[in-house]
Amino acid sequence: MKNIYIIGVGLIGGSIAKDVKKLNPDILIYGVDKNEAHLDEALSLNLIDEKAIFEDLYKADLVILSIPVDATESLLPEILNKVSDNTLVIDSGSTKVNICKVVENHPKRRNFLATHPIAGTEFSGPSAAIEGLFVNKTNIICEIEKTAFKLQERALTIFKIMGMNLRYMNPEAHDKHIAYVSHLSHISAFMLGKTVIEKEKNERDIFDLAGSGFASTVRLAKSSPHMWTPIFKQNKTNVIETLDEYINNLTKFKEFMEADNFDDIFNEMENTNHIKDILNGIA
Amino acid sequence: MKNIYIIGVGLIGGSIAKDVKKLNPDILIYGVDKNEAHLDEALSLNLIDEKAIFEDLYKADLVILSIPVDATESLLPEILNKVSDNTLVIDSGSTKVNICKVVENHPKRRNFLATHPIAGTEFSGPSAAIEGLFVNKTNIICEIEKTAFKLQERALTIFKIMGMNLRYMNPEAHDKHIAYVSHLSHISAFMLGKTVIEKEKNERDIFDLAGSGFASTVRLAKSSPHMWTPIFKQNKTNVIETLDEYINNLTKFKEFMEADNFDDIFNEMENTNHIKDILNGIA
Repeated sequence: MKNIYIIGVGLIGGSIAKDVKKLNPDILIYGVDKNEAHLDEALSLNLIDEKAIFEDLYKADLVILSIPVDATESLLPEILNKVSDNTLVIDSGSTKVNICKVVENHPKRRNFLATHPIAGTEFSGPSAAIEGLFVNKTNIICEIEKTAFKLQERALTIFKIMGMNLRYMNPEAHDKHIAYVSHLSHISAFMLGKTVIEKEKNERDIFDLAGSGFASTVRLAKSSPHMWTPIFKQNKTNVIETLDEYINNLTKFKEFMEADNFDDIFNEMENTNHIKDILNGIA
Repeated sequence: MKNIYIIGVGLIGGSIAKDVKKLNPDILIYGVDKNEAHLDEALSLNLIDEKAIFEDLYKADLVILSIPVDATESLLPEILNKVSDNTLVIDSGSTKVNICKVVENHPKRRNFLATHPIAGTEFSGPSAAIEGLFVNKTNIICEIEKTAFKLQERALTIFKIMGMNLRYMNPEAHDKHIAYVSHLSHISAFMLGKTVIEKEKNERDIFDLAGSGFASTVRLAKSSPHMWTPIFKQNKTNVIETLDEYINNLTKFKEFMEADNFDDIFNEMENTNHIKDILNGIA
């Protein structure tokens, strides 16, 4: 493995670049990005060795896609058309059904591996890339059996150097679960931020009154709408289901309050308290 | 100032104890708590110098109340009955209207100062007490004009050694604003935790699939129901108002998704993105 092409040199692509560089001293990392300023920044930050374009992909041993999921969906078939028979193409999107579907009958389906490394921060762009972002994080791999054996092995080498724990799921299960544990959190944070900003017209007041609890709960509302709009679009059905359940739970909580039923308010909270154990598992 | 009585030796009371100990070398800190195990723990952690009981309060120069807000509401008049004319009594509750109301006509109203130090963690009990918890945090002071001049001064000495920034508000404004920037965050986190736990019966799956984003958004769902139930009860009207607005915003987001109106989904998120600047102010 020598020539690695990273399409999308932001938080995820840039952080992967930092890891794969350690694979061997001969590795050359090429960056492809429709945002020329990001490419220049990635170069000056030494995330990539050279700028490249789509037409160069035939030279790639490995292509990593780290762009919004709608862009992955539309570009992936084209990328597979361009690469050689020995190239491994990996995506990193937060949805898997549409992406797997669009290449299910592609003649080079065996060159592709669908993955979702569950890691990130609320920041974006090349400057957000950090070393060790993926260490001890989970990487969900979908439809591994559709990828060529030799290329599966190559992928495992990469995930090993990234320090990731692998979990295998089908795309439908992935999208359903991830709607709960990731997509819903983002909507919850965005709408909480909106509710508070609408009310507190004077932002100075929010600075002064809000504590670390508020900061933690709305942190994800800093996330990029360019990345998240396509995720919600691709995972529409599952996300709407989670929103329905979340809204129902909030409404029930409100009704308990309206009825002065504070015993059930207490129970609702106590029953959720064992989230502690779950969070210990994450942290 | 020599004899300081802390009623409730948990996260807040214990952390205040660590700070006020630095006031001068002669300070003696007495702990009062209905939980005998907590008192013993506070003693062994050196948070307090001695255990004490309610009947001792006549000896106090300073009484700090750090117990659930319903307990403060019911005990405060009794405490004021017991203390001397030169004692300062401070509470630290997350609601202010009921607490100020219950003593508005008390003959020793001038011995009381209503405060809300906006600091904490999701943990509780004496072992959760930490040094420096209040540094650079906001302390909201209500009805300062009702406290005796001399005791106002004593309070300022204490807040200075805690490192807090002071903001003055009336109790009604306090309860209304804090419903948005604190109480709603807790409900949002509890119900998000509930929604995910209900769905993911297999907790191992939540460990594996959830990332730091989920952990951050539900962190407050670890909070104590004993502390939070009385807060929601006392601030019922304001909290229901915030919940109504939050549920409306979530419902609107869902309706945009159902209508495939992803332009507005994008706008909703982009308009909330400037929460970044607000959070920078907090952090």
